[in-house]
Amino acid sequence: MFIRNTWYVAAWSHEVTDEALFSRTIIGTPVLLYRGSDGHVVALQDRCCHRGAPLSIGRREGDCVRCLYHGLKFDASGVCVEAPAQARIPPQAKVASYPVVERHRWIWIWMGDPALADPATIPDTHWVDDPAWRCLPGYIHYDVNYLLICDNLLDFSHLPFVHPGTLGGPESYASVQPKVERIEGGVRVTRWTMDIKAPPFAAAVKHWPGNVDRWNIYDFTIPGVLLMDSGMAPTGTGAREGARVDAAEFRSCQALTPETETSTHYFFAQPHNFAIDRPEVTRSVHDAIVEAFDEDRAIITAQQRNLSLDPDFKMMAFGIDSALSQFRWTVNQRLEAERAQQAEIKAAEPASGAAQ
Amino acid sequence: MFIRNTWYVAAWSHEVTDEALFSRTIIGTPVLLYRGSDGHVVALQDRCCHRGAPLSIGRREGDCVRCLYHGLKFDASGVCVEAPAQARIPPQAKVASYPVVERHRWIWIWMGDPALADPATIPDTHWVDDPAWRCLPGYIHYDVNYLLICDNLLDFSHLPFVHPGTLGGPESYASVQPKVERIEGGVRVTRWTMDIKAPPFAAAVKHWPGNVDRWNIYDFTIPGVLLMDSGMAPTGTGAREGARVDAAEFRSCQALTPETETSTHYFFAQPHNFAIDRPEVTRSVHDAIVEAFDEDRAIITAQQRNLSLDPDFKMMAFGIDSALSQFRWTVNQRLEAERAQQAEIKAAEPASGAAQ
Amino acid sequence: MFIRNTWYVAAWSHEVTDEALFSRTIIGTPVLLYRGSDGHVVALQDRCCHRGAPLSIGRREGDCVRCLYHGLKFDASGVCVEAPAQARIPPQAKVASYPVVERHRWIWIWMGDPALADPATIPDTHWVDDPAWRCLPGYIHYDVNYLLICDNLLDFSHLPFVHPGTLGGPESYASVQPKVERIEGGVRVTRWTMDIKAPPFAAAVKHWPGNVDRWNIYDFTIPGVLLMDSGMAPTGTGAREGARVDAAEFRSCQALTPETETSTHYFFAQPHNFAIDRPEVTRSVHDAIVEAFDEDRAIITAQQRNLSLDPDFKMMAFGIDSALSQFRWTVNQRLEAERAQQAEIKAAEPASGAAQ
Repeated sequence: MFIRNTWYVAAWSHEVTDEALFSRTIIGTPVLLYRGSDGHVVALQDRCCHRGAPLSIGRREGDCVRCLYHGLKFDASGVCVEAPAQARIPPQAKVASYPVVERHRWIWIWMGDPALADPATIPDTHWVDDPAWRCLPGYIHYDVNYLLICDNLLDFSHLPFVHPGTLGGPESYASVQPKVERIEGGVRVTRWTMDIKAPPFAAAVKHWPGNVDRWNIYDFTIPGVLLMDSGMAPTGTGAREGARVDAAEFRSCQALTPETETSTHYFFAQPHNFAIDRPEVTRSVHDAIVEAFDEDRAIITAQQRNLSLDPDFKMMAFGIDSALSQFRWTVNQRLEAERAQQAEIKAAEPASGAAQ
Repeated sequence: MFIRNTWYVAAWSHEVTDEALFSRTIIGTPVLLYRGSDGHVVALQDRCCHRGAPLSIGRREGDCVRCLYHGLKFDASGVCVEAPAQARIPPQAKVASYPVVERHRWIWIWMGDPALADPATIPDTHWVDDPAWRCLPGYIHYDVNYLLICDNLLDFSHLPFVHPGTLGGPESYASVQPKVERIEGGVRVTRWTMDIKAPPFAAAVKHWPGNVDRWNIYDFTIPGVLLMDSGMAPTGTGAREGARVDAAEFRSCQALTPETETSTHYFFAQPHNFAIDRPEVTRSVHDAIVEAFDEDRAIITAQQRNLSLDPDFKMMAFGIDSALSQFRWTVNQRLEAERAQQAEIKAAEPASGAAQ
Repeated sequence: MFIRNTWYVAAWSHEVTDEALFSRTIIGTPVLLYRGSDGHVVALQDRCCHRGAPLSIGRREGDCVRCLYHGLKFDASGVCVEAPAQARIPPQAKVASYPVVERHRWIWIWMGDPALADPATIPDTHWVDDPAWRCLPGYIHYDVNYLLICDNLLDFSHLPFVHPGTLGGPESYASVQPKVERIEGGVRVTRWTMDIKAPPFAAAVKHWPGNVDRWNIYDFTIPGVLLMDSGMAPTGTGAREGARVDAAEFRSCQALTPETETSTHYFFAQPHNFAIDRPEVTRSVHDAIVEAFDEDRAIITAQQRNLSLDPDFKMMAFGIDSALSQFRWTVNQRLEAERAQQAEIKAAEPASGAAQ
């Protein structure tokens, strides 16, 4: 069960090239992505309406795509425009087409009611291609339900334990309670940890003589998007009051896109605004993030195995779970609302038996 | 759910050698095949009645087979004739035995009521070992339900799209509507495509100066047997009217045997009656068929994955689906008839409680 | 469905070393094993009560273990004694702890009601570390339900058929009916086979001029423990009457521990009391056993595949199945008793709604 009326990240821009047909399964639906001759991304259901073969192993013909099972041809809106051995093509011969917006190197897709797709609600991730910032594109694949990864991202007290050599820093980091506020479609988490050793990934690229004040301030919103202002500045320079003296600043952009009920796509970037003329710094920051996310995946996959062994296991909520409890509540509210809406639409339809 | 009262191809003759115990699962039932001392093929359920171990990992003893778990010995009719540590063998100690007919290098098996097994209803595939024809034996394994492969074989409009380098020929081939007639237990499909380029697999072994007329005339019958008269002759030589001047003729024999609900055995041969003294021609024709069938398997397996993602997907019937719709209807009629028959038999049985 | 109130073998002593955290799934429950500073083995549920992560990928801290997801720390009794960012730890924050007894190189665990765990009921396996005997530790893993392996061990008529080159001996061995007696929690099987060729595994390490009398006398008890007095002595020396002249004697100790419904741990040793100063004899005996158990696994796994193909298959009981039928009956009695007990406990609890 997935929220449908929301923007999901479908791909990095560079994954969808000029020529190729790119396929990715999103909330259980196979999606074909390709660029029209004008460079715009087209997103169609990757399943021919005829016998269900994937269009992505078909053939581009101009801005159209031809299924290479029986030769049906679909235009960029998903309408079947040619069917060999068929003079008249029935109007219902089409595949679903999805609204797509390409912004800051991410391709966003709307899997729900197209009439509700408002590009203005796409989260701002401009740091990813802002010339004042630098980052590398990241993607990893998980064999777990996306909510377990949301849980992980909504509780940073795991940092010193799961990531001691990368994002972590001292274990005292975990003893600071973050501030959690409800925001539209999610939560805002604010955590200041004062006068601590800098975490390894930052210490590797930025040298401070002593301890730092560290902040992690992020919005985590439906369907699973994390946008974070984070960084460290030397203790005593007033970072908490707004100064950013000799600071290392990051604007992490992360997005979870469910593939199926048991697998997830994870897109991420970690833009920084210092040393932007030193690609080795950008690479070092990126590599540390990838290493850390592999650590997350290892423990979450082990957690998933334990949950599978005993579906009756009830997790025990601690104080640190406040953000994730609120987020899961928000998800359930949205799912419930979409279910109610669907039921209403169905009730409003004339009975199909009577109509025919 | 499979039709039981029908002949299935169980194996190629050469797969069941003099000494070995050969096992193959057919419509969900493990079957042991071996040759008795007179050369006749024996088919027994490959599951000891005692604890269920496969007899095929047992031992031949004359025309009997001994289970190498606890040593029970069964004769060629499936009756247990020896049980160590057991003086009296209960009469119900036996495994099912299946009628078998070996004909033209194929071993046919009847999995249903033996009383109904009439060898006269086995399709004629004599071209496979007719001295005037040449072919090589083919077998591939599919991880899909057999009906998806039936669908494929019942609509040759896929040829130019799936097999452009082998069986295909020009895409105009797909625009010709075949004639579809209902026959006993299936359909007959007749397709003439006039004045086209010869398909690659034929052009590789037979050289014509110009275009050809191509015919594909086949019966596709329960459970999944395709017998085809196909070929090409130079355009203008009157092939459609019955002449076969300078023609390349084939008599394809193909049989699908379900292994389980999600896997299928595929037996095939492509006899030709020209250049029969040139083994390299036979090899070339065979290799092209194998290559083409691998192409089919690739797209059908991708189709199967899409169907699994959404069990509610309804295929959309086009004109080209006439033959496959009729065949699926025939299959369902037969399944329904067998179900009704089973229910009748059950109703006629004395209540087992009362009888004991 | 598994019996809970019984002792299971969890591990060989050497598997649980001083430093490491050892994890093994037992009757569907992940269990963490480690040694406290006093050398005693601690067994905790290997699933943090907070979010379900395995403690075994956590960190030892003295006699405690810290979960390396969010840093919760548990003592050797399973109580959570530290939670970062949490001043007060709720009393229900704990993981299950299991009674453990280490004896003769095996670590026994009690997965049921700790109040019922009586070490006096642990079967005697002292031969495993008795200085007058020699053996090597054995372990193999099965992908089948443990009852199929119990069946195998309760009917030695399979020996000459499955193990002709190791444990087997002549096929006449199978024709001897063993004596089967019911004992507390299982059965005793006594089989004397007089005047036969010694089985290969014994003949390899002990040379007799002629035939031997062979005995296999074993108790097979819940949950799946086999303790056997077995051996061979020259025919005519009165072994059956109690003499053990020039005998090869063994005291096999074997224990099946279900991992899940479809997989099993198998612990075993084959102590012998002759040639105890010749390690190559011990090695030869052990290797023959391992080879034989691999033979068992091959046929039982094939049997399991056949059973999966047809869940309706009913095994047919023969005379040789007397012991296994009695054992399966005993298992079902115990399961039924535990179910009834659980229902009683539940009925006695105040309704949780009323209590809160």
